[in-house]
Amino acid sequence: MTNPHRVLALAGGVGGAKLAVGLAALLGERLTVLVNTGDDFEHLGLHVSPDIDTVVYTLAGIANPTTGWGIVDETWTFMDQVERLGGPTWFRLGDRDLATHVTRTERLRRGDTLTAITADFCRSFAIRPTVLPMSDDPIRTIIHSGGQTIAFQDYFVRQQCAPKIYGLSFAGAETAKLNPRLDEMQGADRPLAVIICPSNPWLSVAPILALPGIAARLKAFGVPIIAVSPIVGGRAIKGPTAKIMSELGLEPSASAIARHYAGLIDAFVIDRADAASADAIAALGIAVHQAQTVMRTTHDSVALARECLAFAAALSDRSA
Amino acid sequence: MTNPHRVLALAGGVGGAKLAVGLAALLGERLTVLVNTGDDFEHLGLHVSPDIDTVVYTLAGIANPTTGWGIVDETWTFMDQVERLGGPTWFRLGDRDLATHVTRTERLRRGDTLTAITADFCRSFAIRPTVLPMSDDPIRTIIHSGGQTIAFQDYFVRQQCAPKIYGLSFAGAETAKLNPRLDEMQGADRPLAVIICPSNPWLSVAPILALPGIAARLKAFGVPIIAVSPIVGGRAIKGPTAKIMSELGLEPSASAIARHYAGLIDAFVIDRADAASADAIAALGIAVHQAQTVMRTTHDSVALARECLAFAAALSDRSA
Repeated sequence: MTNPHRVLALAGGVGGAKLAVGLAALLGERLTVLVNTGDDFEHLGLHVSPDIDTVVYTLAGIANPTTGWGIVDETWTFMDQVERLGGPTWFRLGDRDLATHVTRTERLRRGDTLTAITADFCRSFAIRPTVLPMSDDPIRTIIHSGGQTIAFQDYFVRQQCAPKIYGLSFAGAETAKLNPRLDEMQGADRPLAVIICPSNPWLSVAPILALPGIAARLKAFGVPIIAVSPIVGGRAIKGPTAKIMSELGLEPSASAIARHYAGLIDAFVIDRADAASADAIAALGIAVHQAQTVMRTTHDSVALARECLAFAAALSDRSA
Repeated sequence: MTNPHRVLALAGGVGGAKLAVGLAALLGERLTVLVNTGDDFEHLGLHVSPDIDTVVYTLAGIANPTTGWGIVDETWTFMDQVERLGGPTWFRLGDRDLATHVTRTERLRRGDTLTAITADFCRSFAIRPTVLPMSDDPIRTIIHSGGQTIAFQDYFVRQQCAPKIYGLSFAGAETAKLNPRLDEMQGADRPLAVIICPSNPWLSVAPILALPGIAARLKAFGVPIIAVSPIVGGRAIKGPTAKIMSELGLEPSASAIARHYAGLIDAFVIDRADAASADAIAALGIAVHQAQTVMRTTHDSVALARECLAFAAALSDRSA
């Protein structure tokens, strides 16, 4: 086996990127991150892939730690001038970040795939893991809110997640093809585990899981599928997960997340703060591991990644 | 007559923009500048209109005085990042300037005309004159150099005008439609004069004059057509005019420029340094006016514009 510890991680933006950093520190090029592209949209004529960029910038060590998006030490001259020209300013593109969007848009128009473009960005930033868009086909997350539909970035950025969510759909998902690079993860490249990062299960992970055949593909690896809870002590670590759960009639809890993923996952990592939920989750037939899941520093990310890998190894041994 | 002193100026980049500033100071909204778009090209997937931008930025008072292109007080974060991503850096797009190109490109893709987009930019910058692209159809200046053809910006920027010019062509010009806004310049809006600014006659003015019907259209106004010499004392004030004239077998002189425009222009403004050429130019049947044509300051631009307008008025009186 040339890659005895390959891991496939499913990730959205910030929360997913944080665990990816920890996994990357331990696995290097043996990590593959499959990233949500349901947030992608065209803005000012440019193709923006927010979750891919957050994962890439975070792995490159250039992510802006305060905003949760964009690049650190950014300048805003472009945006100031767009405003002067009367253009839209609700979605802010920094001058440095803009190089990503302009380069990507030009290459997509020339016929390059998002996978190839992302791989080149990773090379430019000397990122060792493989970062894959979930698909090279366009998929757009749509929010259903009281009779109206809202495009994702309109909901997430412009309206700051204020509209109540009644449901979500993923336009294009039914005909989209899963990233073909996943086909290569077999034989010696078969992963040791699939890890669903603590990203928002509805906004960030659901678009990935909406791809035709993804669940069967993940199960066919025959390795533990482990999710990490994005809910700690009844609260989302970041973002609107708890709010959305309430709107969908769910109690914002680690147990509810486990029930949401039941049928797909073999195991679930919860925070020690949620120790009381362990039995209820185990009763679903899901193996439970308790850890410190809140990632404030890279050290936290590496520690959680280490726990996830050890948990996966233990689960593999148990089933072997 | 609601616009008794309307003037139509034909302009390329820097030299044309300088005279346009002088004319704008005297005429305000009674000035229309018809600008070369043969330099336009697509770079990094963005539609760049160098001459329109130079004219607009110069009229807006935000042109970079040292480079001759782009915006003053510019930042270069985008370009630095493009370089980091391995992209092309030979054509430099500043962060502020980029807002123009991104906005324009998006609107062109949506189906807006370059004329409408340019008008909106002028409004944003509170520019009183009307700035018109010579056409809303794509025209591309191509350099013929020893058996090979070179795209304009490749020649002008990347190769710094080094290749020897054997000839030029203007791809698309034969089927392009002259800017339709010129149709409105009749009746009370008929111009007092047509002024060909001291732009490069081969690189900047020739693409405009290559448009079908332009000469007949200008002559049909029945007003003086006046060119301002871009050659002073045998040298170009800026740019490769003298070099190109030599390559085309022409002596770099004001007289040669007058001969080049003979048949189109009624009158020619030369620098006092070229007083010795006055008789030879008059012998072509072209009225000659001597002035200080080198524009180093806005004061110089206004003074030259005033001379041009007075010359035009005198010519009109003479023919009336």
